Amino acid sequence: MNSQCPIPPFNSERVLLGHGGGGLLSQKLLKDVIAFELKETLLPQNTDATYFNLSLPNGFSTHQQSELSLTTDSFVVDPIFFPGGDIGKLSIVGTVNDLAMMGCYPQALSLSFILEEGFLISDFIKILKSIRDELLNLNIKITCGDTKVVPCGKADKIYINTTGVGIRISPQGWRPQSIQEGDQIIISRDIACHGLAILNQRNNLGLSSSISSDCHELLTPTMALIQEGLEIHCARDLTRGGLVSAIIEIASVANKQIELNEELIPKSPAAQSAAELLGLDLLAIANEGTCIYFLPKECVSEALRILCSFSFMERAAVIGSVGADSKNGRGLLRLPTGLTRNLKLPPGEVLPRIC
Amino acid sequence: MNSQCPIPPFNSERVLLGHGGGGLLSQKLLKDVIAFELKETLLPQNTDATYFNLSLPNGFSTHQQSELSLTTDSFVVDPIFFPGGDIGKLSIVGTVNDLAMMGCYPQALSLSFILEEGFLISDFIKILKSIRDELLNLNIKITCGDTKVVPCGKADKIYINTTGVGIRISPQGWRPQSIQEGDQIIISRDIACHGLAILNQRNNLGLSSSISSDCHELLTPTMALIQEGLEIHCARDLTRGGLVSAIIEIASVANKQIELNEELIPKSPAAQSAAELLGLDLLAIANEGTCIYFLPKECVSEALRILCSFSFMERAAVIGSVGADSKNGRGLLRLPTGLTRNLKLPPGEVLPRIC
Repeated sequence: MNSQCPIPPFNSERVLLGHGGGGLLSQKLLKDVIAFELKETLLPQNTDATYFNLSLPNGFSTHQQSELSLTTDSFVVDPIFFPGGDIGKLSIVGTVNDLAMMGCYPQALSLSFILEEGFLISDFIKILKSIRDELLNLNIKITCGDTKVVPCGKADKIYINTTGVGIRISPQGWRPQSIQEGDQIIISRDIACHGLAILNQRNNLGLSSSISSDCHELLTPTMALIQEGLEIHCARDLTRGGLVSAIIEIASVANKQIELNEELIPKSPAAQSAAELLGLDLLAIANEGTCIYFLPKECVSEALRILCSFSFMERAAVIGSVGADSKNGRGLLRLPTGLTRNLKLPPGEVLPRIC
Repeated sequence: MNSQCPIPPFNSERVLLGHGGGGLLSQKLLKDVIAFELKETLLPQNTDATYFNLSLPNGFSTHQQSELSLTTDSFVVDPIFFPGGDIGKLSIVGTVNDLAMMGCYPQALSLSFILEEGFLISDFIKILKSIRDELLNLNIKITCGDTKVVPCGKADKIYINTTGVGIRISPQGWRPQSIQEGDQIIISRDIACHGLAILNQRNNLGLSSSISSDCHELLTPTMALIQEGLEIHCARDLTRGGLVSAIIEIASVANKQIELNEELIPKSPAAQSAAELLGLDLLAIANEGTCIYFLPKECVSEALRILCSFSFMERAAVIGSVGADSKNGRGLLRLPTGLTRNLKLPPGEVLPRIC
């Protein structure tokens, strides 16, 4: 038993082991707390699996009938509340963004909780409200869910898995293999805010309070690019491992050289000084609402015009381009001195439990 | 830090925090352990979301084009290895069974791990092998995955979320609302084995070693019923809360009275004496490969013939029937004395972390 756990018997303000047992208490948690808080963002269901039909927003059609996509993420972020978001909002945008980065629109979303015995119901409700707000914002619903409770000391408050099914609304599939020599790389905003906000909050570092997570959905701007008919070859949100990890992975799958220009990468002064202070590489720090798009040169200005019209993307900019074929691929960073260095994956932990 | 945790630095035989950080160590775990062990049961992927297409086994067609289903479960069973299975096998059959109970065939499956720092890689490999065996047995593949690592003492070895997408192959949707007065209820085998096997193993109760979990897929026999053209109105696997919970829930959604005959419910002598010894209600104990089907009387003998041809269902039997309408529904148990009693949900925890 973890020494920070309150002493049982818990009162009704805390999660009990019985809330996960499948009896009346489980039903109460599901009906009075989860379904009550999520309200209209939860599809009515009384079976473990739920049927769903394909549906698209007005103005969109599917391509190559029945190409669907699936993505899953378990969120274990610590702390669960942070400047700019919480584990609830993160769990929705994280999964929806993975679908958006495939040119897909969400069709169904599952929500699965692992709760630690003794977790405050009031904190759970805050998280549920945040999930609901984000679902309403995106106009999507939860299709099915699951709740488990583990004893105190066998989890850390709450872990959330969200798994999303999407249907492709982009004319082609967006894949690392599809990038082409000459493609330009647009980044949607300044980097590293999520990782630094989490680190600051978790360790009471007292960094500038202006560092707030970029936790945000990327579906709306991505749909706007698709609706405008812009040709996009690949897109990626810069989560664990940040910009470095995304570039190296895409370069290696595509067997291409990708070059970024350090001076063009948007960075906030607060993030820059925080990373310098902590000896961290801004480019390898996680984001949760920042992405890159690979697209032909002729589409760049129109894409930038569209992206910059969204308040959370007003700093969107071209940061690099795709070069020639290169066996196993490589990522290069052009420094202000004119020299270049290879981008390298950090060996192990950059920041644990960032999402 | 949990006192049972080995002292860091861990060697390569244990999960490190860095395995979850998105760097080289993460890639190593994914490639050398997870992808290596799962081999051909993992769809090739290098993006967070993965495209998938609809596909059906020979001899099946879809009905009412594009009715899909989604189900999610996080598995936190303790212990992770138990007689008759482990958390890996459970995570696959648990999710596939939920789809089968909707008359659906799996189209895509996600697999998400939360690993505790210090968890033995050798145990992880055993679990991965078990997942692979079950996937090969079912001839389905993992579409996408995710791995997170949390510090020692913030999980219990391993938690697994599996989320499945299915497509309906039954002519009608199977729903509690669809049961009709006169429907017979077939159970697939003797009850309570999973719950008792877990309890016995976890607490070293020394109960009869003949109690082994019923952990098993229900897809194959369910497909056989569909292929035979048998009319089925509803199906349910008897997981958390057991037979009692399933009957009460279905009765309440359908607003029907459902009556079970106690004497007809298959029970193994070992399970019966264990439950008596522990003062537990066999009917409320969880199963993981036992289900009930609701179907018209005229289909019963053919259904029993098909089900009994599977070795793990040779004790399939009719155990009750659906009665008249009843506001909010109720479940009745006819006792050997001829008297009946109401089925009631247990208030809270029957057996924690059963799945």
